[in-house]
Amino acid sequence: MKIAIVNGPNLGILGRRQPQIYGNRSWDDIFQRLQQRFPACTLVHFQSNHEGQVIDYLESLEEQGIEALIINPGAWTHQSYAIRDALAALSMPIVEVHISNIYAREDFRAHSLTAPVVTAQLSGFGAEGYRLAVAYLCENPL
Amino acid sequence: MKIAIVNGPNLGILGRRQPQIYGNRSWDDIFQRLQQRFPACTLVHFQSNHEGQVIDYLESLEEQGIEALIINPGAWTHQSYAIRDALAALSMPIVEVHISNIYAREDFRAHSLTAPVVTAQLSGFGAEGYRLAVAYLCENPL
Amino acid sequence: MKIAIVNGPNLGILGRRQPQIYGNRSWDDIFQRLQQRFPACTLVHFQSNHEGQVIDYLESLEEQGIEALIINPGAWTHQSYAIRDALAALSMPIVEVHISNIYAREDFRAHSLTAPVVTAQLSGFGAEGYRLAVAYLCENPL
Amino acid sequence: MKIAIVNGPNLGILGRRQPQIYGNRSWDDIFQRLQQRFPACTLVHFQSNHEGQVIDYLESLEEQGIEALIINPGAWTHQSYAIRDALAALSMPIVEVHISNIYAREDFRAHSLTAPVVTAQLSGFGAEGYRLAVAYLCENPL
Amino acid sequence: MKIAIVNGPNLGILGRRQPQIYGNRSWDDIFQRLQQRFPACTLVHFQSNHEGQVIDYLESLEEQGIEALIINPGAWTHQSYAIRDALAALSMPIVEVHISNIYAREDFRAHSLTAPVVTAQLSGFGAEGYRLAVAYLCENPL
Amino acid sequence: MKIAIVNGPNLGILGRRQPQIYGNRSWDDIFQRLQQRFPACTLVHFQSNHEGQVIDYLESLEEQGIEALIINPGAWTHQSYAIRDALAALSMPIVEVHISNIYAREDFRAHSLTAPVVTAQLSGFGAEGYRLAVAYLCENPL
Amino acid sequence: MKIAIVNGPNLGILGRRQPQIYGNRSWDDIFQRLQQRFPACTLVHFQSNHEGQVIDYLESLEEQGIEALIINPGAWTHQSYAIRDALAALSMPIVEVHISNIYAREDFRAHSLTAPVVTAQLSGFGAEGYRLAVAYLCENPL
Amino acid sequence: MKIAIVNGPNLGILGRRQPQIYGNRSWDDIFQRLQQRFPACTLVHFQSNHEGQVIDYLESLEEQGIEALIINPGAWTHQSYAIRDALAALSMPIVEVHISNIYAREDFRAHSLTAPVVTAQLSGFGAEGYRLAVAYLCENPL
Amino acid sequence: MKIAIVNGPNLGILGRRQPQIYGNRSWDDIFQRLQQRFPACTLVHFQSNHEGQVIDYLESLEEQGIEALIINPGAWTHQSYAIRDALAALSMPIVEVHISNIYAREDFRAHSLTAPVVTAQLSGFGAEGYRLAVAYLCENPL
Amino acid sequence: MKIAIVNGPNLGILGRRQPQIYGNRSWDDIFQRLQQRFPACTLVHFQSNHEGQVIDYLESLEEQGIEALIINPGAWTHQSYAIRDALAALSMPIVEVHISNIYAREDFRAHSLTAPVVTAQLSGFGAEGYRLAVAYLCENPL
Amino acid sequence: MKIAIVNGPNLGILGRRQPQIYGNRSWDDIFQRLQQRFPACTLVHFQSNHEGQVIDYLESLEEQGIEALIINPGAWTHQSYAIRDALAALSMPIVEVHISNIYAREDFRAHSLTAPVVTAQLSGFGAEGYRLAVAYLCENPL
Amino acid sequence: MKIAIVNGPNLGILGRRQPQIYGNRSWDDIFQRLQQRFPACTLVHFQSNHEGQVIDYLESLEEQGIEALIINPGAWTHQSYAIRDALAALSMPIVEVHISNIYAREDFRAHSLTAPVVTAQLSGFGAEGYRLAVAYLCENPL
Repeated sequence: MKIAIVNGPNLGILGRRQPQIYGNRSWDDIFQRLQQRFPACTLVHFQSNHEGQVIDYLESLEEQGIEALIINPGAWTHQSYAIRDALAALSMPIVEVHISNIYAREDFRAHSLTAPVVTAQLSGFGAEGYRLAVAYLCENPL
Repeated sequence: MKIAIVNGPNLGILGRRQPQIYGNRSWDDIFQRLQQRFPACTLVHFQSNHEGQVIDYLESLEEQGIEALIINPGAWTHQSYAIRDALAALSMPIVEVHISNIYAREDFRAHSLTAPVVTAQLSGFGAEGYRLAVAYLCENPL
Repeated sequence: MKIAIVNGPNLGILGRRQPQIYGNRSWDDIFQRLQQRFPACTLVHFQSNHEGQVIDYLESLEEQGIEALIINPGAWTHQSYAIRDALAALSMPIVEVHISNIYAREDFRAHSLTAPVVTAQLSGFGAEGYRLAVAYLCENPL
Repeated sequence: MKIAIVNGPNLGILGRRQPQIYGNRSWDDIFQRLQQRFPACTLVHFQSNHEGQVIDYLESLEEQGIEALIINPGAWTHQSYAIRDALAALSMPIVEVHISNIYAREDFRAHSLTAPVVTAQLSGFGAEGYRLAVAYLCENPL
Repeated sequence: MKIAIVNGPNLGILGRRQPQIYGNRSWDDIFQRLQQRFPACTLVHFQSNHEGQVIDYLESLEEQGIEALIINPGAWTHQSYAIRDALAALSMPIVEVHISNIYAREDFRAHSLTAPVVTAQLSGFGAEGYRLAVAYLCENPL
Repeated sequence: MKIAIVNGPNLGILGRRQPQIYGNRSWDDIFQRLQQRFPACTLVHFQSNHEGQVIDYLESLEEQGIEALIINPGAWTHQSYAIRDALAALSMPIVEVHISNIYAREDFRAHSLTAPVVTAQLSGFGAEGYRLAVAYLCENPL
Repeated sequence: MKIAIVNGPNLGILGRRQPQIYGNRSWDDIFQRLQQRFPACTLVHFQSNHEGQVIDYLESLEEQGIEALIINPGAWTHQSYAIRDALAALSMPIVEVHISNIYAREDFRAHSLTAPVVTAQLSGFGAEGYRLAVAYLCENPL
Repeated sequence: MKIAIVNGPNLGILGRRQPQIYGNRSWDDIFQRLQQRFPACTLVHFQSNHEGQVIDYLESLEEQGIEALIINPGAWTHQSYAIRDALAALSMPIVEVHISNIYAREDFRAHSLTAPVVTAQLSGFGAEGYRLAVAYLCENPL
Repeated sequence: MKIAIVNGPNLGILGRRQPQIYGNRSWDDIFQRLQQRFPACTLVHFQSNHEGQVIDYLESLEEQGIEALIINPGAWTHQSYAIRDALAALSMPIVEVHISNIYAREDFRAHSLTAPVVTAQLSGFGAEGYRLAVAYLCENPL
Repeated sequence: MKIAIVNGPNLGILGRRQPQIYGNRSWDDIFQRLQQRFPACTLVHFQSNHEGQVIDYLESLEEQGIEALIINPGAWTHQSYAIRDALAALSMPIVEVHISNIYAREDFRAHSLTAPVVTAQLSGFGAEGYRLAVAYLCENPL
Repeated sequence: MKIAIVNGPNLGILGRRQPQIYGNRSWDDIFQRLQQRFPACTLVHFQSNHEGQVIDYLESLEEQGIEALIINPGAWTHQSYAIRDALAALSMPIVEVHISNIYAREDFRAHSLTAPVVTAQLSGFGAEGYRLAVAYLCENPL
Repeated sequence: MKIAIVNGPNLGILGRRQPQIYGNRSWDDIFQRLQQRFPACTLVHFQSNHEGQVIDYLESLEEQGIEALIINPGAWTHQSYAIRDALAALSMPIVEVHISNIYAREDFRAHSLTAPVVTAQLSGFGAEGYRLAVAYLCENPL
């Protein structure tokens, strides 16, 4: 199975961005560990602070042969109907991941514009959230 | 590690309750598979349609030596500050699980009263959500 | 036809509870008259101040061979998504009854959480509301 | 007892108006069956798409010797304080009838401007709702 | 000066409509007294329960040589953008009159859709409100 | 193709109603030009300040052999669920026209009750809006 | 009859305060004309920018033998529950006057905290509003 | 005088529940001190995490000869119209007690569903709040 | 212990202000009884209808050697962030007192701007509320 | 006349994006047909998923000699004040086009941030909406 | 240039009021440094806890020859339409100053009633905010 | 001190964008004057219509040795949580600048998403706002 992991704005500086909230592990470290943990799946990743680049990328997923998507839309979760529309146009399973528990922070973070068009969402597991998302897609179900 | 899994109202009839939403697998079946999948952890479970019984049970967790909690509060998610208070009084890790994607259904389901006092939440993975919750608590982190 | 009539909290003291609003007839008196009036149907009744007991009871309706439900959820009408979920899981006709006109009292009473998942609702007919509900289910249609 | 039944806008085309919602029985058919079913009461009826005509008619009820009113205000339920005021000026019993369950449709239909000034309301019984309303007024109470 | 007085729905039955709110004087009596009190002005009056008739009438005011308007829109005050639009299209002085103090009754009465497009509004003076409105238009200013 | 054009309240005085907003061309002039411009279609028109007359007219459309509807509901756009219900009961294509840009005026004009039940809406093109609506229905598509 | 006229904040500079809104006549001029116009009544007046001074004054009205009150609370209309409470404690007739049409200006001016506890309100008549208020209290009714 | 003190959910673990908010004194200790402090009154107490049990208990108060009620509804304060209805059905004096200052915590705690149907409320006095409530009922008034 | 009792607007006329709500005992009478009841504490009092005077007074409390404050802010409770700020600047215990049950009256009274910055609040005990407030500060705790 | 047509995010994949909503015709096909249909006007087009690129392009319109703009802002309609500001800075006629009826879909789509700063808007005509927009600008008016 | 600096309630105790928010410098110190820093301008200052005194003062500004105003309305920013009205009546430049960042504190502080009627606002610069306000008015522009 | 000045969307065309609101001075002119005015500080500037480019730039500030930030987020102020998050991740002083008084324009402009995470904000000083922001950072404090 080929899975894309997409991270939105301000997630390129994981490790040095407010570590008390987002942890002090870099994305490269997280991604490398994910690959080692789930050798049965092919993982690709993409990060951008540019909404347009992410939409372009999402539009290209099917051409790339990607079969499932894991996305952490960052702040776009709360502001971007354009990302929502791009997700709604896909027909593959989509898992929305949030590192912090978005329901225990500022009011605006408790409302996700994208959640209604994804398959499932998880929030608050720290970097382990990516592990769980891949586990859902790659491992045998119960 | 000893983990309690608590299911709230209307979750005792999993398998025959609106299967197009909640799946057609019974809780006994799900629980048995969970135990087989995660032999390293001791799992106990409790279901009740009575808010008071669940609060009584949550108050007894520490005496029972439980170290982590997985809870699907069902409809209480949206109505019970009493359950929220009982969760807030605990000091162990808590994972809130929802079988369906609560953000893609009726408006009232998109607001969780309990999410601000738990560690993490996942929603929309079907019965696999319980697997991921246990995996988070029992398996090695990345 | 076998019909269950379920009354929620504070409806066990009909007759002595604010009689200017709820009338001064006891439930036993009302129920006895209902049975006499509609001999063609079997009526059973259940009252509880415990949400959990009512959910347990609703889950058992089909096993009991009940074919239709009349429910006065009392104050749960305005607070209990758990009762709503239990009703939504049934596939029989359901009539929601309110003794007083809930739309002519406090603001919070004008919003029913359960009405969207029942077949029909009536409100403000006093104890006669139960008569009309049974008449709908037992008598010949027009 | 002399009872007036008033139907508001778009209710003159019952039978051909969205039959999946409003049924496929015409008003003439319904009214004829009502008269046959309740010979002890005199029923008169009035339908208009004109708010003013209904207000004029309501103002004339007492002169006509009408003792009770059954009204289905149709869409005016949600928009017309003028109809509400006309109802509030009456001193006879008033039953508000809705064919469909107005609490299970669009949001705007869940709020009735007229309900606070009527005696009782019923909703969702289909054309049988008229039967129940007349039964309440004509038949012996419990 | 030629002044039109327009009364909206349910104001044709002044005197017998909820007299504790609207007084027990009929419109004919009030109008006759107004004419006697202000002989220097020509008063004409129009009442209708039909929104459309009032709009037709308002559109005809200038042709009739009317120079000022006194209007009690009754319940349309709170519901009719059509009446508001008709008033906004006029270029004469307009006084909005309410018999009762609309700010001391139900919430919905405290919001006037028409007030922003009239010259002035008065509320709560009982039938004397019509006297003050005519006095404003007919008598010498300070 | 036979097309009805219906204009709601205060649109009978086009040309003399607030010309800075609604233009200074009369409806007769506009309609005559429409007929000349689109000889391939039969155009009929109806204007009323009476909500009830418009509902009556809409109920008669199918009997008249009308195949498409263009409607400018005027202020009813924002107040009349009765017109909305009448439109919802039709099965022909419906175009909602507004002369001014209703989204650039008072707040209340930015919300159309009828838009969710029509095929398409256009707003702000002045009298040309009628031309575009007919062009959509009569001319060849792309 | 002895009548007090009370003006609230920023009304001491009538004549030089935004004359396009409040007119260019000073309060002294207005008050002198009022006295001349209504010789049958004794008029006293009080203006203050200090909420506390106005409350003190209102508490003293009955001792002064005042029988009726005319008050323009200025901006306190929209902010002062203390003035409202002071008015509610009086048992004489109270007329609330606003020079401009408060319903045709900023949103916050369209809500009067004091209107629910006064007898009547008038708004938008300019300085003539004071004339009408005194006329209501001093002149013969219809 | 015989006084019942009722504590709602999560109040059975006073002393070990978030002591920085609720204090570290157990209920047994508090109750024993109350009895010693007010020997002139008979105090009985009841705690339950079950809404239904509390409603049952409240319905039995009059049979038990209880003359006054002190209730800390805990989280039900914000969620239970059923408790509110049970309180509204009583005719004895009722004091609502909150240990913490509910107006200085989360938003949802600042709104009490029960306060409108009790005699008086106090909040923020810690365990001393129970002392003040008993003092109000047992000691001589001023 | 030296305690200041501060009363806000319209509380200087206790005894003659709406006695059915505020009681018919004057403040002098209440205060004298308080002093007699609690000889162990020194009580001083201050009443003003002037917000500024109360803020001036609150700013002087520490200089006067006052150790605790009892305040009934009257209508300022609902309107004055300035009083709130003055209270927030103090570091002594503060008890907010309301004679009537503010949660059982008009909507605006159910929201206190000052409660979040005081130690504790009580409401609805009538004049006895002052007794309880002093009892909390002067008497031995449990 | 030289007209620019600008399409926002997710509109580059017309034809394969949710065809049941957006149709199955590609933009190239639509644009080619538009050029053929309106030879009297020069049409240029621009699509981007990047908000910044569209703002850059809008800022360049006047330099390019463009005289009118047709824009389908896609999801930015509901999220981008930056696009709104860029449109507000233009002085040419602007037509806002939506392929689907945005008022008959999710709530968030019923509110356009850009509509208040354009000349006119049309919605729900499918790809024909572009034809009507060009027709408005290129063809003779009535 | 003659500039008045007005400080509202609770700003007379700068230096001892919550120093972690408002700094520990007294107003006398701040004002003396301002005079030294901007010798080219004449600075006068006024502080009061009395809304009425500030309105009186603002009404006198023009008589005093003041050419510009710097005002920190303190808590009145969020509560006083009377101060707003007094500011709106002035025709000189007005700078609104807040010591703390009012947008990063309690919700109620994020809304300024006065900002819409002043020239400019600054917030969060501490006591330096006064320096910037004077610099804007006294120093050469860019 | 090295200070970055960042301007958001539509601010690259200062001077020709709605000059009555934003002034007619170009950014180059403003920036050049700023450099001349504050020779003690090094100023760098960056403008983009692309949210992603600004986030990229903000992430690079610390690497560039920038010690303070002045940002005018333009329309992103009201729409971009992504910019807010990027600002929140910085640890240097940040001044938010708005050329126009955003509190005196459309409603949506009165709410800044970024203000809670910056040090200070100023609004309405025209291009001089940049001068004040630099003055705050570069000049000696009082």
